[in-house]
Amino acid sequence: MVDYFNSRILLQPSDVPKEWVNILPDLPTPMTPLINPMDGKPAPFEMACAIFPKECVLQQVSEELNIPIPKKLREIYASTYRPSPLHRALGLEKELGIEGDKIKIFYKNESFSPTGSHKPNTALAQAYYASKEGVDTLITETGAGQWGSGLSYGCNLFGIKCIVYMVRASFLQKPGRKILMMSYNGEVYASPSRFTDAGKMFYDKNPEHPGSLGIAISEAVEHSLRSNTSRYVLGSVVNFVLLHQTIVGQETKIQLAKAGVEKPDVLIGCMGGGSNFGGFMIPFVRDKLYGKLPDVEIIGVEPRACPSVCKGEYRWDYGDTAKKAPILKMHTLGHTFIPSPIHAGGLRYHGMAPIISNLYQNKIIKATMHHQTEVIKAALQFARVEGILPAPETAHAIKETIDQALKAKENNEKKVIVFNFSGHGYFDLLAYKEFMDGNLIDYELPSIDIKNALSDPEMPIIDESQF
Amino acid sequence: MVDYFNSRILLQPSDVPKEWVNILPDLPTPMTPLINPMDGKPAPFEMACAIFPKECVLQQVSEELNIPIPKKLREIYASTYRPSPLHRALGLEKELGIEGDKIKIFYKNESFSPTGSHKPNTALAQAYYASKEGVDTLITETGAGQWGSGLSYGCNLFGIKCIVYMVRASFLQKPGRKILMMSYNGEVYASPSRFTDAGKMFYDKNPEHPGSLGIAISEAVEHSLRSNTSRYVLGSVVNFVLLHQTIVGQETKIQLAKAGVEKPDVLIGCMGGGSNFGGFMIPFVRDKLYGKLPDVEIIGVEPRACPSVCKGEYRWDYGDTAKKAPILKMHTLGHTFIPSPIHAGGLRYHGMAPIISNLYQNKIIKATMHHQTEVIKAALQFARVEGILPAPETAHAIKETIDQALKAKENNEKKVIVFNFSGHGYFDLLAYKEFMDGNLIDYELPSIDIKNALSDPEMPIIDESQF
Repeated sequence: MVDYFNSRILLQPSDVPKEWVNILPDLPTPMTPLINPMDGKPAPFEMACAIFPKECVLQQVSEELNIPIPKKLREIYASTYRPSPLHRALGLEKELGIEGDKIKIFYKNESFSPTGSHKPNTALAQAYYASKEGVDTLITETGAGQWGSGLSYGCNLFGIKCIVYMVRASFLQKPGRKILMMSYNGEVYASPSRFTDAGKMFYDKNPEHPGSLGIAISEAVEHSLRSNTSRYVLGSVVNFVLLHQTIVGQETKIQLAKAGVEKPDVLIGCMGGGSNFGGFMIPFVRDKLYGKLPDVEIIGVEPRACPSVCKGEYRWDYGDTAKKAPILKMHTLGHTFIPSPIHAGGLRYHGMAPIISNLYQNKIIKATMHHQTEVIKAALQFARVEGILPAPETAHAIKETIDQALKAKENNEKKVIVFNFSGHGYFDLLAYKEFMDGNLIDYELPSIDIKNALSDPEMPIIDESQF
Repeated sequence: MVDYFNSRILLQPSDVPKEWVNILPDLPTPMTPLINPMDGKPAPFEMACAIFPKECVLQQVSEELNIPIPKKLREIYASTYRPSPLHRALGLEKELGIEGDKIKIFYKNESFSPTGSHKPNTALAQAYYASKEGVDTLITETGAGQWGSGLSYGCNLFGIKCIVYMVRASFLQKPGRKILMMSYNGEVYASPSRFTDAGKMFYDKNPEHPGSLGIAISEAVEHSLRSNTSRYVLGSVVNFVLLHQTIVGQETKIQLAKAGVEKPDVLIGCMGGGSNFGGFMIPFVRDKLYGKLPDVEIIGVEPRACPSVCKGEYRWDYGDTAKKAPILKMHTLGHTFIPSPIHAGGLRYHGMAPIISNLYQNKIIKATMHHQTEVIKAALQFARVEGILPAPETAHAIKETIDQALKAKENNEKKVIVFNFSGHGYFDLLAYKEFMDGNLIDYELPSIDIKNALSDPEMPIIDESQF
């Protein structure tokens, strides 16, 4: 018997986790450092602190198992939107013909944050630390605009100016995002822009260049180095961002337990830089590594147009296109790779979070990929029965969830599938319009580009034995 | 001491109210019936049932104090989004310099429903009844699109086709709303359209006519009468819609009590047709009428460009422009009045819910009005500290709330102010863009138009002594 009155699991504001889960000490192989692009050596502490807020730099390499969440931050989370709800997807289960309790689908709903996604979780943390450290301006890039909105909101709360370089493809597809960022006093530029050397390299050749997260990062890093009271921050990829997002997975674990699920079978999230997927699955990964959840399957979903893990190489690469940001060991399609202009702008990044790359390389987690038409089709199927219209990024997780549920149904398996609903798609309506009009197209991965992108003669030699 | 961890009051899904509050038997003067526009007599039951779902017609005139909410409906509310949160507006209080516990601001947050407003509360109810009665198509009008989205969503859940006539001014200002409605399989036409006699009257003279709710209602009613398995439904004005919305006020009462507030001082909502304001305040009105809340001030907020209550007359008038819908006793600016194209499309209605008009006439509630620039300014002030970007309609309630709080501060009064946050503004970004660009303009009420609109020689004589 389906229990509708216990299908949405809510925690109280006072249940906001007190600590973040730091997976670094648990990793099967040691985490690699950020590398200085100038000399191929680990970036010195002072150098990292000239880029990021200092507290974030400390968290980036922390060996503590758990890191306390400052009280002020917990207060803001609790009084605004956290914990987020966990929903049993009863509508979707019915739609897929799996009513009953054999196959259960749950989703953690991060779309009810003020800016509509999981991004404020780390935006608030970074803005909080920056304000404490006397930083007056934070500069960043954004793909689809979820991160730029989250940071604009967070900065405004802490009285910090926010400047956002928004990938032009998304800037044009999602005009509402710019207005939202401006509503929170954010300053927004389409990238590549004329305002940085990194941007001009592309802008001067083609003022309509669609841009990429790699280019936008270069612009934001360059801009941030102009003043010593400004810092660069980012919304994904690096360890401390995934750390801040672990509140998502921790809440999910408590909520699943309240729903009577001690051992979920499959965990799914979309991954671009890896922050929503990372924050969602890391607390479960710890349980897996500690033998408490030995059989849980953890799946990251990429777009076929930009499958860094599924089709990239695990190697050292620049985090950005203009080689201004640190070098990272990660799965990458190459820092010069410009992904096709799919609607899931937040997944158009050439690399992957080193934590996720490490876990994938160690076979703790899996990865898969889908085309955007099948993804948006799945998102519409979801919206029609569950109500909320998903962001195109989130839609990747939904497509994989539906596939997994149907496979379990075919195989007559008992299964609990949980995915992270990272954000709503109210600013991404063009994707849905194109799909409904029959105009949405898929992009194959251009293989020659990638081979070129992966060979950069300027890449310094990195001696891994040194750290 | 501000308690951040108890500033957002959440109820559990099982707390969804079991009954709707029917204010009709409590009204100080009897509720007037719907009048047949053909003969000036109360619309017979059969005639009303040819327009609306039968169960709604019964609710429209019910004398029961409370009406049970069907179990199936409660299940859907509970498993998707209800009860909605009640927030203490700590950010706004700080912004206004009223931190502490002397002046408290709360808001009931209806923006976390699947379509972003309070509209699904009644959309789900109407679609449920229609489906039970064998209706296969529901046809309606929408202003800003909140109602059209809610009904498209509700209809789709119950396997009913949904057709929406959307006021052209909003259709052009808010293109995303159309895509959202289509995402839920809704069919959307800009009104006035070529598809109905009522629409052609205006369309043929001016294909770019901005439209009005009055015209769109005429089109929807006309279209619905073409088949006996289709019905017209609406998202505001009539008694049964306000009835369905009373879950909002009932939850608010429980949540305020949990927050230690037994007697709020001021309740505020925006009003166009009156559904969000009505649903929010009706449970409190009952308490006021029963002597439990003798001093509570209840204020409806209108746009200065369309102030039906503040500047209209209390009289019999057609519910729609083409005189196809029933005649109602209400505050009205006249059924031919075409409001200026303000962004708060949901408030562009010439009349007011008869329940609200009755309560206003009996001095149980008050009304006020504001211009859209001051309203959007207040909304931005709110968004910057509370996070959520309000719908332009909701922004009217926020402007009044801020004014009330500042007045209480000036007078050194102790006060609890509660307003209904009826919906988010993610589809209304043009309003914010125009404001930030300095291009948003205000519209004065054109007095001559109204005088003309109020005198219609075709209006039948209505003998109030007959009922």
